[in-house]
Formats: sequence, C-alpha cells, structure tokens
Amino acid sequence: MSALPAKYDTYLAAFERILANYCAGMGSPLGLAEGMRYSLLAGGKRIRPVLFFAALDAFGCRWGEERELALALECIHTYSLIHDDLPAMDNDDLRRGKPSNHKKFGEGNAILAGDALLSEAFTLAMTAAKDEPHRRAGEILSRAAGAEGMVAGQFMDLACENDRAAGEGELAFIYENKTAQLIRAPLMMASAIAGKDEAPMKEFGTALGVLFQMTDDILDVKGESVKMGKTLGKDEEENKLTCVRIYGLAEAERRADELARRCRESLTYVEGETKFFAELVTYVRERDR
Amino acid sequence: MSALPAKYDTYLAAFERILANYCAGMGSPLGLAEGMRYSLLAGGKRIRPVLFFAALDAFGCRWGEERELALALECIHTYSLIHDDLPAMDNDDLRRGKPSNHKKFGEGNAILAGDALLSEAFTLAMTAAKDEPHRRAGEILSRAAGAEGMVAGQFMDLACENDRAAGEGELAFIYENKTAQLIRAPLMMASAIAGKDEAPMKEFGTALGVLFQMTDDILDVKGESVKMGKTLGKDEEENKLTCVRIYGLAEAERRADELARRCRESLTYVEGETKFFAELVTYVRERDR
Repeated sequence: MSALPAKYDTYLAAFERILANYCAGMGSPLGLAEGMRYSLLAGGKRIRPVLFFAALDAFGCRWGEERELALALECIHTYSLIHDDLPAMDNDDLRRGKPSNHKKFGEGNAILAGDALLSEAFTLAMTAAKDEPHRRAGEILSRAAGAEGMVAGQFMDLACENDRAAGEGELAFIYENKTAQLIRAPLMMASAIAGKDEAPMKEFGTALGVLFQMTDDILDVKGESVKMGKTLGKDEEENKLTCVRIYGLAEAERRADELARRCRESLTYVEGETKFFAELVTYVRERDR
Repeated sequence: MSALPAKYDTYLAAFERILANYCAGMGSPLGLAEGMRYSLLAGGKRIRPVLFFAALDAFGCRWGEERELALALECIHTYSLIHDDLPAMDNDDLRRGKPSNHKKFGEGNAILAGDALLSEAFTLAMTAAKDEPHRRAGEILSRAAGAEGMVAGQFMDLACENDRAAGEGELAFIYENKTAQLIRAPLMMASAIAGKDEAPMKEFGTALGVLFQMTDDILDVKGESVKMGKTLGKDEEENKLTCVRIYGLAEAERRADELARRCRESLTYVEGETKFFAELVTYVRERDR
C-alpha cells in the first residue's frame, strides 16, 4: 500500500476551501441547494480538481486562481454519481457510506439536484471563458461530459448489463468514456490554459482513467466493504460488464500492472515536473479502497 | 382564434433545417442518439429558437448564422420535458401525441438522453462563445436553465404538488422560473449579441413567459385533448399548483388578459421593429392548443 503524492493534500485542501465557499453562496431554493450540497460535500478524493490543479502547477500556472473550472469538474462528477445511483440506473442505496441522494431526498428531487449541478458546471465554465484558452478548457470539459463522452459511457454500461454477448470492445468503450473522459479532461484543460499541446496529457489521462476504473472493479471483488464505503460485490450480482468478468481476477490484475507501466511511460512526453503524476499512478494501482 | 405572426414560419422553417442537420451529425452511440432525436424531432412550436431569431432580426443581426445557441435553447427545453415526464416527476405517458421518452426507451435511457441534451447545450454554447457578446449570451442561457432558474422552478413545482398551503407566492415563483426563464432567455441573449440593453427584453420576456404558462394551465382545464396532444385535466387530478386552482377559471382568464396588456406595454421600451412580438402576444393569449 503506497501513499498519495505529498502535494495531494495541498491541492485537496485548497479545493475544499473553494468548495465550502461555493456551497455557502448558493442561491437556489433551500431544499434544492440542500440536495446539491449533500452530495457535493459527501467527501471523496476530489481527484478531478486535484488533477487540474496539479497539471496547472506542473505547467507553471497560478493553479489556485482557477476556481470556476475546478468547481465545474466536481459538479459534473457529483451529478453523474447522483443520477447513476437512481433506481432506474445502478440502484445504489449507499454512496460514500451515506444514503445516496435519492434515498435521502426522493427520486424526483435527486434527478433535479443532478440537473442543477450539471447546469452549474455550465454556468461556471461560461463565467470562466473570458479568453480563448479558458473557452477551450470549458469546451474540453463539456465534450468530455456529454453525449460523446461520459454520458455515452453510462449509456453503454446500462445497455451491457445482463448482456452476455458484450465483450472486450464494449468494456473498452465503457472504461474510456464513463471514467477516463473525466479523468483526462482536467489534464487537457490545464494544457489548454497553459498554452501547451493537449495530446500528451490526453494519452496519459486516458491510461490513468482506465487504470482507475480497472482497479475500482478489482476492488469491488476483493476490497473490504467498510473501507470502500459502498456495497461490494454488486457488479457481479448485477452482471455488470467489468474487467474481472471478462478476464478473471488474475488476468485483470496483470493487465492493470501493464497499464500502470504504460501510464508511467506516457508521462515522459509530458512537459514540466511529472513526479506527482508518477506517484499517483503507483497509488491508484496499489490502493486498497 | 388569432394566427401566428406571419414571419413565425420563416424562423421556424430555418430552425427545422438547422435541427435536421444537427440530428443527422450526432456521434453518440446509436441507441443514445436515437432517444435524443426522438424527443428533439417530436415537433412543437420551437418558440424559444424562434424568439431568438425574431429578436436578432428585430435588432438587425444576421439571425440565420446563430445556429449553436438556437440549438442549445431547444436542447435545454427538450431535456426538461424528458426529465419532467419521468414517473418520479410529472409521470406523463404522452407528449405531443406520442409516448413520452421513458415510455419508449425506458427510464434509465430517458434520464441519460436528458443529461446528454443538457450537455450538448453546454458544448454548443462553449463553441459559440468566441467573443464576449456570445460568451455573455451563453451565460444568460446557463443561468436561466439552472439551479436559480428553470430547475429551481421545477423543484418548487414538485414541492407544491399536494401542498394545500402553497399559494400565490409559490405560484409566481414557479411561473417565473419553470417557464418564463427560458422564454425570456433567447430575447436577452439576442440583446447581448446585438449589444443592446438586456433589461427591456427581460421585462417583456418575463411577462410573455408567465402569460404562456397561465394560458397553458387554462387550456389544461378547458382545451380539447386531441388538439393539445397530451393528457388533459391532469393538473387538477394531481393537485398541481396552477392559476386556475388559486383564482378559479374566470379570474385566471381576467388576469391573463391583464398580463397580455402588460406584455404589449413593455414592448414600447424595446428597440427595433416589435410587430412580431405584439402579434405573438395576441396569439399566445387567444390560442386554443
């Protein structure tokens, strides 16, 4: 078990302050804001805004000033969890050790809290788009989240449940879109803001995102429920398409190791100080929660 | 019964061409794109993009070139109908004379089609935001749609169902946010693009939007089901908060007349040729479907 990169806590603490301020200033009807805050403040690793800050930092930008797009990333991630947990989707009662949004506030309100958070991301990105690099960063984000990105991945994931004919091609599509799109987006957004080529971070971020989801699926089989804060073994029970179902546990582990190696290799093409990202790859591969 | 303004069909036909092109070029997984197209192409008056084009035209802009934001308006309206029809919300089986999206494709897919359409609006607005007036127009749109706009109105609408204590204040909030926000948005967006003061169109659009929803609620009580293409009398059955429930039919009609008068009055503060909008007010007040 390896630790998070040393600077992770610095970025995380900065983001938590930004998020707390943002949540305190919400002007929505009380009940709606309550549902949005409940899920935004439920914890989690905040990996997307942290990656955004870390990449900006690696490129020598003033990362602490990029509040809107950092918040937009977390709003999109949070909305996707709320909608994904709904009975018509993954039907999860538990999220990060607490009742999922619809268990707490009801299905209709959970759908609206998700819609509100996605709309907030839209507003935050429009507010930030005052020059071309920031406009481009917002466009990267919206495309990563949308009908040819994360939502496409969710759609395929839902379609492949209980579909025994689904195989490696569908699995790769789900991993790349459902998870990797929103992991690589902050890295590409930082590249755009810093005026760097987006391609190296796109390659690294895609591999990191797939690794993240593979290890998540592996942990669903072998992790401990308390540490994970959610119902384990659900994937198999629901016939979800995962790397463990396709390859078996041992081969899935071997492929995750190979992918971690490719992550590190792709980092050699990224400009700036990449130590943070190399350490993060090790952490993601070796984490037990 | 009065007719639509003469130029309505010009703007409508132009938008239908833009929409058909857009739908043909969708790159999402087949099933997801199918669900998005099903609702986008289900017809309707396209009042939001038409208002956008008409206002741009009134201000002397090249309205036919503003494709992205016109599409974004219709994507947001369509997503809101899909989510609003869900069992956990209004639970409507019928929309524009056809099965609602979740009846046709299932609840999970309908939630995702809605999420995809809102994300598309986000991408379209980011693509359009290449100068400050267009960035501002996108920001107007996202705020109108979001947690302090349309979604706030939907939330209050849901909260007030079966709540006999809800009254005039809640009704005004629902009308202004659930409906008027996205009716005035295209008018304000056109003002921003044309470099005009947004305030006159904001005032006119708010009154027009409330009038639109009031007459919709009145038609729900007295319209004919075939013409409306949806289940009528549902509002009362579900104890929805409407102007008819609060004021009774006769007083609701009187208030709609008064509001139509205020619409026309507020038009005197709008620059440019306003004949189209004056005719539209008459149409909205006197329509029977």
